[in-house]
Amino acid sequence: MKIAVLGCGTVGSGVVEIIDSKKELMMKSAGENIDVKYILDIRDLSDTPFADRVISDIDIILNDSEIDTVVETMGGVEPAFTFCKKCLEKSKNVVTSNKALVAAKAEELFDAAIKNNAAFMFEAAVCGGIPVIRTLFSSLSANNIVSFAGILNGTTNFILTKMINEKMSFDSALKIAQEKGYAEKDPTADVEGLDAGRKTCILASIAYGHHIFPEEIHTEGIRSITLEDAAYAASKGYKIKLLGKADKLKNGKIGAIVCPFFVNDNSMIAGVNGVYNAVSITGDSVGDVLLYGQGAGKEATASAVVGDVMECARLKKNEKHYFWDKHEDGIIEDHMLYETALYIRGYSKDAKTALINIREAFGGVTVLERDDAPENEIAFITGKAAEGELRDTLSELKDFASASVIRIL
Amino acid sequence: MKIAVLGCGTVGSGVVEIIDSKKELMMKSAGENIDVKYILDIRDLSDTPFADRVISDIDIILNDSEIDTVVETMGGVEPAFTFCKKCLEKSKNVVTSNKALVAAKAEELFDAAIKNNAAFMFEAAVCGGIPVIRTLFSSLSANNIVSFAGILNGTTNFILTKMINEKMSFDSALKIAQEKGYAEKDPTADVEGLDAGRKTCILASIAYGHHIFPEEIHTEGIRSITLEDAAYAASKGYKIKLLGKADKLKNGKIGAIVCPFFVNDNSMIAGVNGVYNAVSITGDSVGDVLLYGQGAGKEATASAVVGDVMECARLKKNEKHYFWDKHEDGIIEDHMLYETALYIRGYSKDAKTALINIREAFGGVTVLERDDAPENEIAFITGKAAEGELRDTLSELKDFASASVIRIL
Repeated sequence: MKIAVLGCGTVGSGVVEIIDSKKELMMKSAGENIDVKYILDIRDLSDTPFADRVISDIDIILNDSEIDTVVETMGGVEPAFTFCKKCLEKSKNVVTSNKALVAAKAEELFDAAIKNNAAFMFEAAVCGGIPVIRTLFSSLSANNIVSFAGILNGTTNFILTKMINEKMSFDSALKIAQEKGYAEKDPTADVEGLDAGRKTCILASIAYGHHIFPEEIHTEGIRSITLEDAAYAASKGYKIKLLGKADKLKNGKIGAIVCPFFVNDNSMIAGVNGVYNAVSITGDSVGDVLLYGQGAGKEATASAVVGDVMECARLKKNEKHYFWDKHEDGIIEDHMLYETALYIRGYSKDAKTALINIREAFGGVTVLERDDAPENEIAFITGKAAEGELRDTLSELKDFASASVIRIL
Repeated sequence: MKIAVLGCGTVGSGVVEIIDSKKELMMKSAGENIDVKYILDIRDLSDTPFADRVISDIDIILNDSEIDTVVETMGGVEPAFTFCKKCLEKSKNVVTSNKALVAAKAEELFDAAIKNNAAFMFEAAVCGGIPVIRTLFSSLSANNIVSFAGILNGTTNFILTKMINEKMSFDSALKIAQEKGYAEKDPTADVEGLDAGRKTCILASIAYGHHIFPEEIHTEGIRSITLEDAAYAASKGYKIKLLGKADKLKNGKIGAIVCPFFVNDNSMIAGVNGVYNAVSITGDSVGDVLLYGQGAGKEATASAVVGDVMECARLKKNEKHYFWDKHEDGIIEDHMLYETALYIRGYSKDAKTALINIREAFGGVTVLERDDAPENEIAFITGKAAEGELRDTLSELKDFASASVIRIL
């Protein structure tokens, strides 16, 4: 299968790199070789490894019947929209990572896809590598979606995490986010919730079956959050998180909003820190499902794009089956050879001497303590080594009866 | 599309109930009516709402060309295997929730599916409603899977959670699990890790591309975990969790194991409590992805089965596009009408009097405190009401200047 990539920026170049370097995986999992034949970009890429495939005229792609699938990673609504629509009209599948495009123009692109029997896929447009689009469209399709709530923007979650965990002001945290490349020089789209708003609209459109535009939903950012608010939140077991949220209301309408929320510390979503994203979805049959991972980043986002491209390859062959190969003897390694650290608890008549022996035998251990431990109890964590070696050392210890051994993840 | 359900137990009856009751959702999302034509069961179901569809002869299903897809929810390897194989040989798609069947016989069933161009799907076989099978096969297919680790058994996670959070002994926690119906009278398969072992094998088979049998992997349960171990774990910021885990080792072999682990409290997986399941997957491009939800239960598992059935309906039509309908005016509700509780922080010259007014105006509030708060600062959480009403009440307060308003999730 030959494909073209429109836009060789961060995500686009990541897509080409994955497809160029994982030939064997593509063949095995999609049942087909996948090659990038063209890279459309108006910039000078003559110094890059991609130089011989770079073109600047979309018509070359549109008129090449060998091109089965087109990846759009240009960003922005135009000319991405025009290019994608023309590709679909030529019955070429389109895979995009462009959330602005999907939030603004999906209706028209669905039309073109359906009329021309082409696929239009956009897993990478929401939360990068987290498989939330396919989960909503396919895995949870037997559910009426009661509600969802997501940490959909890594930049703001990074800032809030710094503020809450390190008692840093908003401005200082934003500065660090900019230094680390998580926030742009003009951080408006992230900080004011606009980016989360687009993603909320895409998810709500899937969940509730109608196109929802970003302008329709109330959107607040995190600029006004202070350390005082974080302290009050903590006093009652809450964390402050910027969420995109939607529910089906009793009157049949949709409640959708992007704003900071107090989130209970015991919830999974409160544990999502730094640049990570997560979406919690409640279905009427499945209950709560949470998907968590890197919501951005070159490789994570590019891998989601390539996942969609591989799905296009399977659809092309009308392949109905996932499968794996036959059993192969000896591919499972003896677990005594796995590297691990071990927690060991046991007893010795002379705990003090035993501990000296233990430290010597294992080459240093971390000793653990607990309340009300009997005097003859010893507990420690070893360094990392093959489990078999650690077990041998343990069995050779004198005057120590082991009661419990647990591996450390 | 007409389907048959083999085995009308907990999951099977859940499947029939969802398909019978969600006609509109099926039509909208799968583009086709789905009807259960036959229910195969040898028990007397004449007193159930399913009576008129119950048959006891598999040949009726095999010989009915109208039956497109067969759901297998009998459990156990036989006769499920024989029935599924025969259905695939008649080019009928098979959807199963039966992990024992998949772990023991997937190789042969894949063969039959591929030869006869039928689908063989089993999302519900691992972790009920959590979409881990499709995520591994499809969404993450551009990744080499570095490793995964999962809490794959809700019963043992419930027991460990009780032991850790309530300092309950293993025996007492098991008894409660049995009373609540989470553990069976003979809890061996759960407690000894055998159930988690089957699921680990299925996930490792997808991740590493070869069939892996449960007998090949080292499996330990949680019977020997004591409260002393849990206390030592807590002393260093760990929780004890039963995990199914697999890695690709440097020598090319696969490391796979089921056993209790010390898991760092800061990791997402340490926060998975009670009967919930979660799988953390590390891909070479996507990084860490975590999927979390109910790993068992009638409705959650049945909804995963029906999700697969709907996917079969889409495959039948070689449907390439997910989509949603056009925009509809007025479907987003005014956010001032959403019910919520509000956190409000502000200032008053006379905080004591202001607080009396606030309590009266809002009909009771929860007052918050923090260290070093100035005397004129007040922070509180209101009861739940339409946001607009709460804002109106706030704006009418005398001698109180609001500085921060944040919604409570």
